[in-house]
Amino acid sequence: MAYVRPIRIEFAHCDPAGIVFYPRYFEMTNSVVETFFADVLGYPFARIVMEMGCGVPTVRLETDFRAPSRLGEVVDFTLVAVRLGRSSVTFRITAARDGAVRMTTTATLAWVGPDGRAAPWPEDLATGLTAALEEGPAA
Amino acid sequence: MAYVRPIRIEFAHCDPAGIVFYPRYFEMTNSVVETFFADVLGYPFARIVMEMGCGVPTVRLETDFRAPSRLGEVVDFTLVAVRLGRSSVTFRITAARDGAVRMTTTATLAWVGPDGRAAPWPEDLATGLTAALEEGPAA
Amino acid sequence: MAYVRPIRIEFAHCDPAGIVFYPRYFEMTNSVVETFFADVLGYPFARIVMEMGCGVPTVRLETDFRAPSRLGEVVDFTLVAVRLGRSSVTFRITAARDGAVRMTTTATLAWVGPDGRAAPWPEDLATGLTAALEEGPAA
Amino acid sequence: MAYVRPIRIEFAHCDPAGIVFYPRYFEMTNSVVETFFADVLGYPFARIVMEMGCGVPTVRLETDFRAPSRLGEVVDFTLVAVRLGRSSVTFRITAARDGAVRMTTTATLAWVGPDGRAAPWPEDLATGLTAALEEGPAA
Repeated sequence: MAYVRPIRIEFAHCDPAGIVFYPRYFEMTNSVVETFFADVLGYPFARIVMEMGCGVPTVRLETDFRAPSRLGEVVDFTLVAVRLGRSSVTFRITAARDGAVRMTTTATLAWVGPDGRAAPWPEDLATGLTAALEEGPAA
Repeated sequence: MAYVRPIRIEFAHCDPAGIVFYPRYFEMTNSVVETFFADVLGYPFARIVMEMGCGVPTVRLETDFRAPSRLGEVVDFTLVAVRLGRSSVTFRITAARDGAVRMTTTATLAWVGPDGRAAPWPEDLATGLTAALEEGPAA
Repeated sequence: MAYVRPIRIEFAHCDPAGIVFYPRYFEMTNSVVETFFADVLGYPFARIVMEMGCGVPTVRLETDFRAPSRLGEVVDFTLVAVRLGRSSVTFRITAARDGAVRMTTTATLAWVGPDGRAAPWPEDLATGLTAALEEGPAA
Repeated sequence: MAYVRPIRIEFAHCDPAGIVFYPRYFEMTNSVVETFFADVLGYPFARIVMEMGCGVPTVRLETDFRAPSRLGEVVDFTLVAVRLGRSSVTFRITAARDGAVRMTTTATLAWVGPDGRAAPWPEDLATGLTAALEEGPAA
């Protein structure tokens, strides 16, 4: 099952053309990843960053902006896990409205330990990501 | 009755000290004003700005930051109308958690016509704001 | 002598009306405070926050937005120190173009130690702020 | 000759780990594209968007984040044109410090007319981009 979150396009997201300014899309995709880690995997970023001193930085992005999103629209963000490595994961995040894709990004994140270097996923996080991976593309 | 909206403090809001970076608070208060106009007054910003060519810019702010808000916390934003003019309104917006105030701002906004000048509120908007004003401070 | 920094209004600062979205003004005023601390006082925020574990949070703001700033305009930000306390300082920051004021904010900041509590300014910082205060309003 | 602009990493760019939050990188790359259009091509975004009613939206990005950038560092952003189409252009933008790459993005932008559809570049803009393309990769 994919993880879906509707986001309403607000004034703060929009540029002088009245459409989403693309860096704001990445604030939205980061927010979707953040609530996915918190709500589905049980790893809020506060736990990862502040308590554990670890991190989950984005290391690669491939992004297509297909059509503009406008002020006031509610856009559905869908996250699926598409690849899982020992210390990395790749998500595909698609923003769509009424089935029409606005933006799609393939994002690879790495687990980073307190020393700032890539490290294997904690065991329960790997378990959660494996479950997400298996359910993922079917959504 | 006051208008209350909980906002979870996300990674994007926080600075290197792990607390809300204050310009992000204003993105939050603007969002609260925006959903108040949309959901309570029936005037989404898309209608005001894109359809009517009008605006509702903030002209004055008085803000106290009482205590930091941290990554992952859910903070309640409460908006009350405290003064209504012919073409302006003053809101008090308070961000609090478990009754402890984090931030409070008194914001004055003006209604601006297509020519960019202050203009009287549209009649139904004035009616909605009057209702909010009367209910406001009691909340 | 006041501290002046011109800032060009960029696409990222502007809202669907083509003017500065007010939370972006606070990113600009924060940037002006930050370069003032780095370039005039010799205290880059990296030193204050990352090396010393201290902070210089904003505790109060009084802001007037007098006229909109538009995409592409170069606006001069002028910072003067107007009051110095044992662990606080108040700046007046004015954004103007061709002498016409766009925005003015009076911002009070506090020095905060590694325990997150207000603390007296480090001696050399107090010296620098005192010099700025004496030169300030004359600018 | 490549177009190079140094950007100092400021407080507003950084996340709770004290490093650049990746959506802020895109605010920086957008700013670099914006000043390139203004200063090299003679097409400030204010002219493109506000006067001509046109736009130059980003339609595709491929981005690698190689190493973190920290608060206070000055990072050089280098833009080269790598491909020019009838109504699109592809830039490679690299952020580096002391020769070590922090981030690199390949960004494709399209020229969009007042009707919101892709349109051929204005002639003088095509000329400027052609010159940039020929000089580009050599930088």
